[in-house]
Amino acid sequence: MEQTKLLALLDQMTLEEKVGQLVQLTPMFFSEQGEVTGPMNELEMTKEELFQIGSVLGTRTKEDVISIQTTYLANSRLKIPLIFMADVIHGYETIFPIPLALASSFDTELVKTTAELSAFEATRAGVHVTFSPMADLVRDARWGRVLESNGEDPYLSSQMTRAYVEGYQGEILSDKDTLAACVKHFVGYGEAEAGRDYNTVDMSDLNLYQNHLPAFRAAIDAGVKLVMSSFNVWRGIPSTANKYLLKDVLRNEMHFEGLVIADYAAVHELINHRVAADKKEAAYRAFSAGVEIDMVTDYYQHALPELIQDGLIEMDQLNQSVLKMLELKNELGLFEDPYRGLKDETLDRDMTPLRAKAREIAGQSMVLLKNESILPIQPSEKIGLVGPKANSHDVLGAWSWIGNPDKAITLEDGLKQAGFNPTYVEREIDYVQLKYCDKVIVAVGEISDEGGEGASKTSIALSQRQVELIKEVYHWNQNIIVVLVNSRPMDLSAIQPYVKGILVSWFPGSEAGIAIVDVLSGRVNPSAKLPMTFPQSTGQLPMSYNFLSTGRGINEHNHAQKYVSRYLDSDNAPLYPFGFGLNYSQIELDQVKISQIDQTTVEIKYQITNHSENAGSEILQVYMQDKVTEVARPERELKYFEKIHVAAKETVNGMIRLGKDDLSYWHADLSFTMDPGAFDFFVGFDSHAPLAGTWTYVE
Amino acid sequence: MEQTKLLALLDQMTLEEKVGQLVQLTPMFFSEQGEVTGPMNELEMTKEELFQIGSVLGTRTKEDVISIQTTYLANSRLKIPLIFMADVIHGYETIFPIPLALASSFDTELVKTTAELSAFEATRAGVHVTFSPMADLVRDARWGRVLESNGEDPYLSSQMTRAYVEGYQGEILSDKDTLAACVKHFVGYGEAEAGRDYNTVDMSDLNLYQNHLPAFRAAIDAGVKLVMSSFNVWRGIPSTANKYLLKDVLRNEMHFEGLVIADYAAVHELINHRVAADKKEAAYRAFSAGVEIDMVTDYYQHALPELIQDGLIEMDQLNQSVLKMLELKNELGLFEDPYRGLKDETLDRDMTPLRAKAREIAGQSMVLLKNESILPIQPSEKIGLVGPKANSHDVLGAWSWIGNPDKAITLEDGLKQAGFNPTYVEREIDYVQLKYCDKVIVAVGEISDEGGEGASKTSIALSQRQVELIKEVYHWNQNIIVVLVNSRPMDLSAIQPYVKGILVSWFPGSEAGIAIVDVLSGRVNPSAKLPMTFPQSTGQLPMSYNFLSTGRGINEHNHAQKYVSRYLDSDNAPLYPFGFGLNYSQIELDQVKISQIDQTTVEIKYQITNHSENAGSEILQVYMQDKVTEVARPERELKYFEKIHVAAKETVNGMIRLGKDDLSYWHADLSFTMDPGAFDFFVGFDSHAPLAGTWTYVE
Repeated sequence: MEQTKLLALLDQMTLEEKVGQLVQLTPMFFSEQGEVTGPMNELEMTKEELFQIGSVLGTRTKEDVISIQTTYLANSRLKIPLIFMADVIHGYETIFPIPLALASSFDTELVKTTAELSAFEATRAGVHVTFSPMADLVRDARWGRVLESNGEDPYLSSQMTRAYVEGYQGEILSDKDTLAACVKHFVGYGEAEAGRDYNTVDMSDLNLYQNHLPAFRAAIDAGVKLVMSSFNVWRGIPSTANKYLLKDVLRNEMHFEGLVIADYAAVHELINHRVAADKKEAAYRAFSAGVEIDMVTDYYQHALPELIQDGLIEMDQLNQSVLKMLELKNELGLFEDPYRGLKDETLDRDMTPLRAKAREIAGQSMVLLKNESILPIQPSEKIGLVGPKANSHDVLGAWSWIGNPDKAITLEDGLKQAGFNPTYVEREIDYVQLKYCDKVIVAVGEISDEGGEGASKTSIALSQRQVELIKEVYHWNQNIIVVLVNSRPMDLSAIQPYVKGILVSWFPGSEAGIAIVDVLSGRVNPSAKLPMTFPQSTGQLPMSYNFLSTGRGINEHNHAQKYVSRYLDSDNAPLYPFGFGLNYSQIELDQVKISQIDQTTVEIKYQITNHSENAGSEILQVYMQDKVTEVARPERELKYFEKIHVAAKETVNGMIRLGKDDLSYWHADLSFTMDPGAFDFFVGFDSHAPLAGTWTYVE
Repeated sequence: MEQTKLLALLDQMTLEEKVGQLVQLTPMFFSEQGEVTGPMNELEMTKEELFQIGSVLGTRTKEDVISIQTTYLANSRLKIPLIFMADVIHGYETIFPIPLALASSFDTELVKTTAELSAFEATRAGVHVTFSPMADLVRDARWGRVLESNGEDPYLSSQMTRAYVEGYQGEILSDKDTLAACVKHFVGYGEAEAGRDYNTVDMSDLNLYQNHLPAFRAAIDAGVKLVMSSFNVWRGIPSTANKYLLKDVLRNEMHFEGLVIADYAAVHELINHRVAADKKEAAYRAFSAGVEIDMVTDYYQHALPELIQDGLIEMDQLNQSVLKMLELKNELGLFEDPYRGLKDETLDRDMTPLRAKAREIAGQSMVLLKNESILPIQPSEKIGLVGPKANSHDVLGAWSWIGNPDKAITLEDGLKQAGFNPTYVEREIDYVQLKYCDKVIVAVGEISDEGGEGASKTSIALSQRQVELIKEVYHWNQNIIVVLVNSRPMDLSAIQPYVKGILVSWFPGSEAGIAIVDVLSGRVNPSAKLPMTFPQSTGQLPMSYNFLSTGRGINEHNHAQKYVSRYLDSDNAPLYPFGFGLNYSQIELDQVKISQIDQTTVEIKYQITNHSENAGSEILQVYMQDKVTEVARPERELKYFEKIHVAAKETVNGMIRLGKDDLSYWHADLSFTMDPGAFDFFVGFDSHAPLAGTWTYVE
């Protein structure tokens, strides 16, 4: 539809029809006969209002979408098609690894592919918009939603966020294989106090700019269509009513031109925050702050018309938002085809190849933390298998609501498929059997419900029961490989002395079991790295590798002194650092040379050699320290990463250039510029990479 | 000395002499012969420079002060007396309870008295300025310095901070029994990330105004003479170089007119923060931001003259600071008597009465957390005594450097003094003896070094060894009273089921043992309350009762739901809440009536009855919830407290008025005003006080 027609359509709309476009409800509101059901009454929606709404959240099947759209179009005066939005977080029916696992790949192409595949499948179920990616920076593993994040580093998260948006949205939204992406949660939600979901957030605007905005900027640069406002307060005001965040920062400073949607019932929750007395005030605060779509409340429906009649909200502002909604529907081709692809039989393709991709992607996302000559396991070896995750179908992780766990591959099945004949021991009384195994895999970790929204924990330690299990196994067999199925960094201190191998498989998705065995057996040479620090204890949280320099930082000279920034009962080091992960090759870096290209461009040349007979990949990582700055800066910050494949015995030469944008930082006045002076560069394969050289910017 | 003479003196001073006034060194720099010693060479100070400095930090005795002052005056050209500053935190030689304990008293008169007594003793050792009170708000018990604080509430901390300043400074500083007070640490230090001392701080300015400034405002209102800048960054810039904090906020907004001193070596540490390249830049950033006295570095000494010559710092600014230094010395009477009272024999009074006061103060500062009909202990009872704190002299706590632990009373001695004949059992093999006791006191907790500066912990749990000790005792005798000697709120979850009584004695000071027995035996009826929440686990931190309302706060209706702000493995409640503490009376509150006095004044009338035969005191506490606000506010916030004594069977009637200042809050634009609308008031004896009524402000 041409823009002029959209404008004409807008002109035809009543105030109520306009407001309706900004209201989002769930499929529950539409019964098969298009009758009003219970929940609608709770929200006090009339049938007339229902057939004015703009979007629907969380349909499950193609048939549901067709039915709802048909009912809606039959009853709606202007017959503006509904847009269907859903949480497609790490796959739709085929479940890929959780986002934190995908971030572990340090592979943007892999993330982009995952998003493409998710879109491919979800569009065939009638979804138009996904509430993904989650760009929230996270530093506290207590928080359940770390699993949806890209971890603790703003640069890594930015790259991953961009890859998701590119993957979902493709080249053009009229391509029926694409989803419009909604980046979330704007902003600061990842700093929920004490790692407790929905808890208060407090930070400076400098921290906001340095750490929390970059990934959203990347999404906007990649053309993301929607932004979701977060549940938390920022400077005392809920994001959903925060004009500074949504207008000054998001619109004016970051130039976002798409739609802003509230998180689930967040407009209503302004009353719980006690910053609005009633429906009308909540709707006023949210809309005037810049929230355009009201998710699953009737606040906009019932308060915006009055607010406009009262002159508290300008009709122009409403028109602008409604027009954007119409434009998004138009971009998706909904005016031409309200069933976008669903009625085109040629699009009912075979989904089978998705499973093969899911397996491959999962293998690239698992982090090998420890390997004392115990991995890979060999077909000739007798493998014991123990633990709650050994034959569990609970491997999909949170936010896999369409995925069917029954169709997921367990570790035991994976071992069998790969030709191993594991001795699976369930009862403690049978542990004696483990004595006769060459190696024992102990599969432990978390259940899906321990991660995700509303799933925070005061302890990130492996459960005491699981620790005791490992000690018990150790009694019978000391060749223990731990496979961790987990949503978050966990405190593994208690089991460290008892195990020779640790593979963090995260929640690997539909192909879990076989993907884990791919890595355990060496069919896949692991290459993933930690996107979040694994601390020594919950008591070290929040924690991240990129902490700021303090006045009394600990170093090799002062670590035994009293008046330094340390704990009495623990050192400051993590158990496993950010960016860390092992592989089965012997890949080394040398010949790192730093040189200047022009006044503000530095070049890093390097040579990577695989000394082993195993082809493998390493994640080259470049960290930087700007030596003297106006505001305190991280001791080191990731500036570049690249997954580099090295064949057996191969040597690869490469070159990286870092320019002004990489070398700049947010100053006290929130300007993003670089200062003259020295920069240290650390190049290697994890965040403890050694100093490679220093370069000086002369103004 | 008249002001004109001070100005004339300033006129006579060379640039180097002026700068010297702003330099503070330790006594080490002065040998008995006035020779230059090692440390001075390290700081590159010449003998000439030494005899130009303005102040000395941390002398131990009257004799030291006399000797250093004499040497200085003999060698100094202008003979401006040195001013002696020291950390007199909770007493000097006579040690009172730690400040967190004093805050527990909820008794400002008691705190004021403690400060007066500290000043009385410290001035007799030649001290002129104390680096106390510490006004930092704290919410994370991992941080070692919580012991120096007044706890987690801005109002409580403000009242206590004011009381310290009034106590130290008295009516007039020329009174030789007074100390000038230096309030610290400006500002935000209490929010050290992950509870690790000296770590990064990040917060919004709204949080700063709401929570961290009020106690400093109270100190300034009380006429505090000095403010110390903190070690932490604020919005990326160390406080010690933070012009916004030290000029915009402290000077312009809060109208502080006294001297600003850097914390120990903090000017040098700007280099560690990496916000200054060298001595000159560090000195420039600190001085131009508003730091006037450089504590124990040679940065000002060696860089300020050049900075003035270069025109980077105005001579006027230097003159202003030096003049303030001269004025402070003059106020203290140092020009008339450089030995301020030390050479007046009549002032060599008997210090013995201080111990009696220390005993009384300690008794008023201990919090009885649990009493299942086990306390008070009776003279007729056979009392067992076990645990590492049972006969330990380590009862003074951190920051008691002049106090002599050998002169402190142990719990065992206290019991004996009070006429008990405890069965003290040291070896596990003798625990069987406990079987024959009526009750067993298990004295556990922390050593002094586990609290204070540089003493943070990743776990606040009672040590596993001490938990096992209690379980072992429980095996022999189930009438267990735990006496906790501690610097911080501790996680007592593990011992709860095994003990019938818990007395938090904190670090009680010189009279520890007898003061504890005063409370255990009922000679003192306990009245203190927790000034910090005791959490259920370290994993709940940071935590405080006055958390902000969120969009998904937990309540009686939704606590079983998934999508609320809670943990999976713990509820949100503390083990013991802020403001909580038991006594041996039965004191009840009733007849609470809320009424309006004028448009912005509300009156709360109440009746308190002691139904028991034991005279006692309760801490009446009034909490408020402003129902709808512009920015998210605490669910409840303390607005008033008062220690009320009630004789046996007595009924007391009282009245409180809250006015505009109490009902206002900091808005988004940092204005401090009140909004029209409803206010809930909760009146009772802890932070879970019931709703007493609602009052509405009509504009």
